[in-house]
Amino acid sequence: MLSACYTGARTIDVRATRTPPPGPEEVQIRVAYTGICGTDLHIFHGAMDGRVTRPAVIGHEMSGTIAQVGADVTGRHVGEPVTVMPLAWDGDCPACRAGHEHICQNLDFVGIDSPGALQTHWNVRADLLVSLPSGLPLQHAALVEPVAVAVHDVRRSRLTAGDKAVVFGGGPIGVLISVVARHTGAEVLLVEPDPARRATAGALGFPTADPAAVDLVQQVDQWTDRAGADVVFEVSGAPKAVLAATGVARVRGTVVVVAIHPQPRKVDLQRVFWRELRLVGARVYQRADFERAVELLAGDVIPADGIISRVTPLTEVASAFTALESGEAMKVLVDCGGDVR
Amino acid sequence: MLSACYTGARTIDVRATRTPPPGPEEVQIRVAYTGICGTDLHIFHGAMDGRVTRPAVIGHEMSGTIAQVGADVTGRHVGEPVTVMPLAWDGDCPACRAGHEHICQNLDFVGIDSPGALQTHWNVRADLLVSLPSGLPLQHAALVEPVAVAVHDVRRSRLTAGDKAVVFGGGPIGVLISVVARHTGAEVLLVEPDPARRATAGALGFPTADPAAVDLVQQVDQWTDRAGADVVFEVSGAPKAVLAATGVARVRGTVVVVAIHPQPRKVDLQRVFWRELRLVGARVYQRADFERAVELLAGDVIPADGIISRVTPLTEVASAFTALESGEAMKVLVDCGGDVR
Ligand SMILES: [Zn+2]
Ligand SMILES: [Zn+2]
Repeated sequence: MLSACYTGARTIDVRATRTPPPGPEEVQIRVAYTGICGTDLHIFHGAMDGRVTRPAVIGHEMSGTIAQVGADVTGRHVGEPVTVMPLAWDGDCPACRAGHEHICQNLDFVGIDSPGALQTHWNVRADLLVSLPSGLPLQHAALVEPVAVAVHDVRRSRLTAGDKAVVFGGGPIGVLISVVARHTGAEVLLVEPDPARRATAGALGFPTADPAAVDLVQQVDQWTDRAGADVVFEVSGAPKAVLAATGVARVRGTVVVVAIHPQPRKVDLQRVFWRELRLVGARVYQRADFERAVELLAGDVIPADGIISRVTPLTEVASAFTALESGEAMKVLVDCGGDVR
Repeated sequence: MLSACYTGARTIDVRATRTPPPGPEEVQIRVAYTGICGTDLHIFHGAMDGRVTRPAVIGHEMSGTIAQVGADVTGRHVGEPVTVMPLAWDGDCPACRAGHEHICQNLDFVGIDSPGALQTHWNVRADLLVSLPSGLPLQHAALVEPVAVAVHDVRRSRLTAGDKAVVFGGGPIGVLISVVARHTGAEVLLVEPDPARRATAGALGFPTADPAAVDLVQQVDQWTDRAGADVVFEVSGAPKAVLAATGVARVRGTVVVVAIHPQPRKVDLQRVFWRELRLVGARVYQRADFERAVELLAGDVIPADGIISRVTPLTEVASAFTALESGEAMKVLVDCGGDVR
């Protein structure tokens, strides 16, 4: 088998090893595709070396088929197409006991805190598997994880049909949130400074705004007849977007904090108070979100081919990271060789 | 009649004029007591001269009895004890049309944007009256408005019996929120740097913490068995408290933004994301909050005598403001002469 091993900033080696069999309660997945996300890029840059034990096989957006079933696993069979919901919780912390296992206070995020999918064969806990319908292309299925993020974000927002939503940030998650929100019946305005990303979003049918070129508050006021947006998604991570997000929200509107903000950001709390806004954090997903993501991909709601900009062989995995960091690509998949259908 | 007229920074004159009769749809209230709050003090300092048309009769926390009933007013009679819910909305803006009249986009806050209660006789719209039970002392009834703020804040928090709540800020609103939260069945920890305010809160039975002297995260972790607080109220307006508020909240916990923050504040959005926190703004009150506040005062739930630190005659109104700004007083009432029972 081949594994992509992150060993330190900007270094990923592809190593050949003997393929170990799956342990008890595990299955071995023949990995088809593994998507690279912003967090993976962050790891590649060395920014998460304090958390990632090296050498590390990363990767948590994936699709594949079951190659072997370990001992004590029931209900799974060889050849079955699957993806993995990469969250392993302890079941015992206050968050888990309150029913919020997905954000367990001791969460093991598989592919970051434990080995991930950037390899040809992956032994993984069977209870983390999510079944895929046989008609879903495995390239599209590699998007289940980011689509589940978008489904979770939209669910946390309580957006309903007829709402008007503003999405700050036109990367893969911003675009997927826009797609899920539109499918829920909302009108979406996508705010993104990069012209190439605006063009991608535009091609998917979304009105876009360049925050440097327009008075966003005025534009949203006109669009909403002076009410403001029902829901705002902050997906950009940009300090200016945080201030703008509260500025375009309606009275009692919702701002969903999706992006990672490594530093505390200035927030217009006066506006939060004045309009009785609701700011909610949204992180990863719950099992229902993952299953809904599979449905949306299988139902062709997600324009997967418009979002996947490049498929790179595992042997050239480093070029997947450099393509992503150049900003030229929306979503890059690594072909791990298991798409034999 | 006598009226306290704010004419410019630090200047309030008491003026004698002829008493005008109430207009149609108005009643004339013989004012008993008018409380002074932080916003009134802000006006006194000249900080709101851009909003307040001078000379201005301010004051919006009050109690009194009906002295005259104007034309076209039904269901009101002379001698009836009343208070005023000082919100006049347009009924026509997007917020009003969505049912959020209390934070109307064109709200007239009576006592700030239009004449208030710092006078012996007050002609006011009859539909703003809230009836008081005859057994409720009029001094206590002057607290209905700030108690309604606290009721609204606790309602917005969705706090329930058994919850653990941290209140940042031990001024009148922080103490009233603590009282209402405790009455709802929550345990409360009040965080306040000022020793005199901590002593007042302690005398009312609340555990307190000096944020400069303790590791608050550690203390709350111990108190909540590593979970964090269910609800956090930010009532202090202090930048440090904003950062601390998210730090002590549990996974999926709520932070209520009660204080006014004139500048954008640094907020730990990473923590909002990581723990899927909910930050909600809470401003003024709705009619149900006002009526609940009357009930809580009439039921002796609110330790009114422990909160009212001073009663000043209207003729010495300026000294009420200077007592409040010195920090020596919790709640100062101005005696407008109408408590003749
Ligand atoms: Zn847990
Ligand atoms: Zn209105």
